[in-house]
Amino acid sequence: MKNMGEEERDLEIEGGTMMMMEREDRDRDRDRDNRLGSDDSVSSKDSLRQPLLLLKNNRMNNTSQLAIIGANICPIESLDYEIVENDVFKQDWRSRTKVEIFQYVVLKWALALLIGLSTGLVGFFNNLAVENIAGFKLLLTNNLMLKKKYYQAFAALASCNMILAIAAAILCAYIAPAAAGSGIPEVKAYLNGVDSHSILAPSTLFVKIFGSIFGVAAGFVVGKEGPMVHTGACIANLLGQGGSQKYRLTWKWLRFFKNDRDRRDLITCGAAAGVAAAFRAPVGGVLFALEEAASWWRSALLWRTFFTTAVVAVVLRSFMELCRGGTCGLFGEGGLIMFDVNQAKPVYSTPDLLVVIFLGVVGGILGSIYNYLVDKVLRTYSIINERGPICKVLLVITISFLTSCCSFGLPWLSKCIPCPPNLGEQCPTIGRSGHYKNYQCPPNHYNDLASLFFTTNDDAIRNLFISGFDKEFHLSTLLIFFVAIYVLGIITYGIAVPSGLFIPVILAGASYGRLAGSLLRSFTVLDKGLFALLGAASFLGGTMRMTVSICVILLELTNDLLMLPLVMLVLLISKTVADSFNKGVYDQIVKMKGLPFMEAHAEPYMRHLVASDVVSGPLVTFSGVEKVGNIIHALRMTRHHGFPVIDEPPYSAAPELCGLVLRSHLLVLLKRKKFTKQKAMTGSTIMRNFKARDFAKPGLGKGLKLEDLDILEEEMEMYVDLHPITNSSPYTVVESMSLAKAAVLFRELGLRHLLVVPKTPGRPPIVGILTRHDFMPEHILGLYPHLDPHK
Amino acid sequence: MKNMGEEERDLEIEGGTMMMMEREDRDRDRDRDNRLGSDDSVSSKDSLRQPLLLLKNNRMNNTSQLAIIGANICPIESLDYEIVENDVFKQDWRSRTKVEIFQYVVLKWALALLIGLSTGLVGFFNNLAVENIAGFKLLLTNNLMLKKKYYQAFAALASCNMILAIAAAILCAYIAPAAAGSGIPEVKAYLNGVDSHSILAPSTLFVKIFGSIFGVAAGFVVGKEGPMVHTGACIANLLGQGGSQKYRLTWKWLRFFKNDRDRRDLITCGAAAGVAAAFRAPVGGVLFALEEAASWWRSALLWRTFFTTAVVAVVLRSFMELCRGGTCGLFGEGGLIMFDVNQAKPVYSTPDLLVVIFLGVVGGILGSIYNYLVDKVLRTYSIINERGPICKVLLVITISFLTSCCSFGLPWLSKCIPCPPNLGEQCPTIGRSGHYKNYQCPPNHYNDLASLFFTTNDDAIRNLFISGFDKEFHLSTLLIFFVAIYVLGIITYGIAVPSGLFIPVILAGASYGRLAGSLLRSFTVLDKGLFALLGAASFLGGTMRMTVSICVILLELTNDLLMLPLVMLVLLISKTVADSFNKGVYDQIVKMKGLPFMEAHAEPYMRHLVASDVVSGPLVTFSGVEKVGNIIHALRMTRHHGFPVIDEPPYSAAPELCGLVLRSHLLVLLKRKKFTKQKAMTGSTIMRNFKARDFAKPGLGKGLKLEDLDILEEEMEMYVDLHPITNSSPYTVVESMSLAKAAVLFRELGLRHLLVVPKTPGRPPIVGILTRHDFMPEHILGLYPHLDPHK
Repeated sequence: MKNMGEEERDLEIEGGTMMMMEREDRDRDRDRDNRLGSDDSVSSKDSLRQPLLLLKNNRMNNTSQLAIIGANICPIESLDYEIVENDVFKQDWRSRTKVEIFQYVVLKWALALLIGLSTGLVGFFNNLAVENIAGFKLLLTNNLMLKKKYYQAFAALASCNMILAIAAAILCAYIAPAAAGSGIPEVKAYLNGVDSHSILAPSTLFVKIFGSIFGVAAGFVVGKEGPMVHTGACIANLLGQGGSQKYRLTWKWLRFFKNDRDRRDLITCGAAAGVAAAFRAPVGGVLFALEEAASWWRSALLWRTFFTTAVVAVVLRSFMELCRGGTCGLFGEGGLIMFDVNQAKPVYSTPDLLVVIFLGVVGGILGSIYNYLVDKVLRTYSIINERGPICKVLLVITISFLTSCCSFGLPWLSKCIPCPPNLGEQCPTIGRSGHYKNYQCPPNHYNDLASLFFTTNDDAIRNLFISGFDKEFHLSTLLIFFVAIYVLGIITYGIAVPSGLFIPVILAGASYGRLAGSLLRSFTVLDKGLFALLGAASFLGGTMRMTVSICVILLELTNDLLMLPLVMLVLLISKTVADSFNKGVYDQIVKMKGLPFMEAHAEPYMRHLVASDVVSGPLVTFSGVEKVGNIIHALRMTRHHGFPVIDEPPYSAAPELCGLVLRSHLLVLLKRKKFTKQKAMTGSTIMRNFKARDFAKPGLGKGLKLEDLDILEEEMEMYVDLHPITNSSPYTVVESMSLAKAAVLFRELGLRHLLVVPKTPGRPPIVGILTRHDFMPEHILGLYPHLDPHK
Repeated sequence: MKNMGEEERDLEIEGGTMMMMEREDRDRDRDRDNRLGSDDSVSSKDSLRQPLLLLKNNRMNNTSQLAIIGANICPIESLDYEIVENDVFKQDWRSRTKVEIFQYVVLKWALALLIGLSTGLVGFFNNLAVENIAGFKLLLTNNLMLKKKYYQAFAALASCNMILAIAAAILCAYIAPAAAGSGIPEVKAYLNGVDSHSILAPSTLFVKIFGSIFGVAAGFVVGKEGPMVHTGACIANLLGQGGSQKYRLTWKWLRFFKNDRDRRDLITCGAAAGVAAAFRAPVGGVLFALEEAASWWRSALLWRTFFTTAVVAVVLRSFMELCRGGTCGLFGEGGLIMFDVNQAKPVYSTPDLLVVIFLGVVGGILGSIYNYLVDKVLRTYSIINERGPICKVLLVITISFLTSCCSFGLPWLSKCIPCPPNLGEQCPTIGRSGHYKNYQCPPNHYNDLASLFFTTNDDAIRNLFISGFDKEFHLSTLLIFFVAIYVLGIITYGIAVPSGLFIPVILAGASYGRLAGSLLRSFTVLDKGLFALLGAASFLGGTMRMTVSICVILLELTNDLLMLPLVMLVLLISKTVADSFNKGVYDQIVKMKGLPFMEAHAEPYMRHLVASDVVSGPLVTFSGVEKVGNIIHALRMTRHHGFPVIDEPPYSAAPELCGLVLRSHLLVLLKRKKFTKQKAMTGSTIMRNFKARDFAKPGLGKGLKLEDLDILEEEMEMYVDLHPITNSSPYTVVESMSLAKAAVLFRELGLRHLLVVPKTPGRPPIVGILTRHDFMPEHILGLYPHLDPHK
């Protein structure tokens, strides 16, 4: 029962969420007590077990089954970026032709092009749909308002919102729960090497696209940016797999990309394309992928990502050009640059800089409070959401009603303002967009709060960024809007709707900035629109903690390079201030979801430990030529994904480490049944029957399973040669290696298994395997509670 | 004599340049024949040698001395980014206080601030000086031209140019030869882990600053961009060292940064700051550092680099604000954005895109030809330059005279054009800048070729980028200018003057683009200024092969985000086209200089080899407690920088690998003379006497040398305990590890030594050490000539 207890402790560590680590290698230490007095007598930690011995142990049997059942809740799998250099791979590598290499390169670029095209198309479609649906809704309500039918207007608005919200929630709750939320944390975790269940599945893609359209059109304080990033990643995954295997849509010539490395590159491109499509910011997209999303980067990828985002930009531009004639319904007013604040000349002096610094400090504090509250709300919601899909939908309905009340009710607090004389524009505005909303006011008056609330989020931001003195907001207007959006943004994230965080943060930040600009009018000559931009920057820096990419995205959004130094300054300050309180919002969500994210640097306390301190031995190993029954039993009884292969006499003078064999490869090998009655090296026969592509890795949960094998009873006693599929070059560390250095090795090379070998001679050739889980702070600090986490 | 022969072959491989690899570990295999029949009898490759035995070998002795003499020509040293986790380090790590950690973080940012401030200041000073000197020169000549004194004008121009050129050449040839050229290849190599002699020394910094000012002011077709990057790196290095040790200017509190890791980060910041200062492009600077300069990157660095470039931007802006009143002489006309083409509206359709694609293809071809010719010219010049400083100066004089002839003589080929009527500006231009140069023309006429030649490079670019139809160039003008600049750019790079490649390439590209725009007028409606910009992009893509950073730099230079897709397209095409012919110009120069640059990816043929195939054993090892005499002899007789330490009975049951000890650490240990008469573990005594900072790494060639030790004869027979300074966690690979995977490990972790351990038990615990040199294609393909380099 000790094992049960351990199981529970781990669940607790992982944050009480829905997910659970598929503890692939942790249950190795379960039966440490039942060790055999074999010839490996040097240290109590270094013994090896034959799988047969392991199977005799009933306790182990029970525990493993428990782990298997437990893990079915929501599996997480580590990705493996190591190239498996086994004999089959080497045979293929030697025989590959120049045509194949050329084909691979061309396909890589063709895929990047396809990702760019599809993401651009989806981004355009998303914009088109949102503008038309939300536009229709606002026109309807506006017409009722003009006729002074206020109750009907509210009913129309609230019910439109509700229907759209329910549609989004049903899609999310019943078809693809993984599509809820921003998706950026999951993509970030994927690119770090953690694949969580169905996060990039076709159903998730479908729900993400339509859920996001419905959610944004429903008037929620959510953005389409996070979902677009997730959408881009899903598209990249789908294209890289050559379509969906489940729906039998696969292109065979994409077999080259069936491995985690190439998939990672494609998904990085997809994430960049998503940002590029959402913000129409191609350079910003590349930088976002680099700064926030990707954990590994190389120069070639920069170049390919850039190509993808360039394609997105061209696609978007062409379609918007098409729409310029008014053929796209209510869409087609914006250019490629979304918010144009170019009129304001940024001339500033020292007092202005002080004001900007102040703005950054307060923005940083407000941003970190935002993160803190989002975390609290998410934890509360996850309790509600766990009760089932119907609770999720009910929560969405509640928030939708609240949002409708705010956006319809709050503008009544604002006074009516007479239209300024000699105005170039129409006042009050008739129709959907424009600054001067008539709302409940008498003719020739307008309600400035309505021009923020009673519109789409994009238009509200555009209105806040407006420069010049003729379009002014009341102090109270800005204050009410700021508070409402700040609160709504926090309580909206976490409901079962695809919801980005960028737009809520930019909205709150821009209103905060404009408010601050109005309050500090006596100290500064800076334009209010500029203040709104700086406020948005400070909030983005305070919550998301990105710097370069946000800076570039804001520049591309506003097309104003001259304010670069000011934006940089405010971003740096707000990030620094906020970093002293808590982590960035995406990191926080990754942690909350229990995804085992590996940081780029080793934790300080890891320097006090060595590799063998955290490794969990003894482990299951195979002989170079192993009995089929042993393999089957080991696969059935453990959830390990990698098994060391040991060559023993007569194949070598003494036991020596031959390499590592993967579960997925073993399954493929066993499926073809190249067994022999006698224990013999039959590698060359096997090699003739396999190509490297037979071992290509399918997506999570799609490969061969143990149940797919039908091994006969007599075959269980036969032998199979594991050498051809054994990775003979696994990365190894000596057991006395500092844990910090082992962690750096593991992280930098993107490993899934790191073999620990003994230091002293005369011992068995392997001590244990380190996996991602062994480097998690929870695991290490659980084993060594006396360690100071910060030192 | 075999060793001599090998030495020569290697020199030849390294390209016939001045430099020579410090073959730290290659002379290990020299005495493979003279192996002893010791107990290590398993394989002929795996024997170990005691240093004493090694010293008995006279041939080895000779060879090593030869290597030492040979290496004095121009030493290159590998950098070591591995953290040396020895006992002394761990002791310090355990005892470090929160104050120290805080101090380190604050210092890191303070240094980034200082780098930004200094580089910004230098950048401003550079601009100020160039504009004033060149402006004075042009004014003088112009006045003589107005008086029709043509011969005097030519004499004035040519002699001004000559004097400035000679000043630059003398500085370069006599004070700091390392300051010649762009400097970007050397910085790139440094950030890859190769430190070449005095490349970041204070004298180099001094010459780079003033040489660049004189060189640019002398009218050479060179830019200040490359030199600014080098300057930024030098400043960072100087600040990181806490000033110059040579000139006794050091700040003690900067001791934290005396290691290669922190120095690398600082120099990355410096390089980014250099680009930011040169182009006034802060985001472009960060991206340049990421894409072209740095070999290692992490998110934290992005954030710090960004801070540095933001500081540069603020400094530049403030100073230029100061100069706006006309207090800076002839400087002060440009804003923060250098070239404003904002007037041209980029409206384009499909035929325009085809024209742009054509522009990109031809630009790519011309760019790769440019690289090819630069390489040829560089090789020719290096023969001339090797003959001594006086030859360098003479070469500079020749090129200077040629440049003066071109810039004065060629405008005579152009016809005089009558000034357009109803012009807002003055025509012909009086004074220094402006589009309409009178030159030799009658009043109210102007010479359009003179407006390109008879001005500074910056103004010429500005004139080429001008949009609209009123300021038109003749076809012949553009053709003459393009050919002249293309040729001058190629023959100027490589002379003993700090010379950037950006400006020549932009000039040639812009004139090519404008020319192409004029020729293709019937197919496209795009503006000529835009064509110039796209032409510049295509040339930059074709020569330097950067994409994202050039794109952003061009955007920041021109402040026109709307043409982003077009710039991207042309960059992608020209890079792709040029990549199929040859390498980027910086990579080419790195290779030509014989710097052992490690690519991020493993070469294909490495998969066919294993680590032990290229390792050069036997090697020099020490016992855990070693005789002082043995150490001294080993240090004297080899140039190795790392020695494996083997624990033997009685300190362990069997010989086992204890770790790796570095030459520099051994020298520090021996200097303090903590020796014992008996062979005994005295680690704790030593630990009390040392702190980690005693082993801090000084700059290249500045640490303790063997000659600084004064070990007495009786001390030679005493013992010293090496355990406290032995890095007990060196990275290791098994001898059967695929060489490709070993190369990835070596490169990704930034190692200097990678230990190869035996696979089979019962053998000595180390097979050899892999160093940077062992991964060089020349070395591997030299050992295995039958390997196909591309497969």
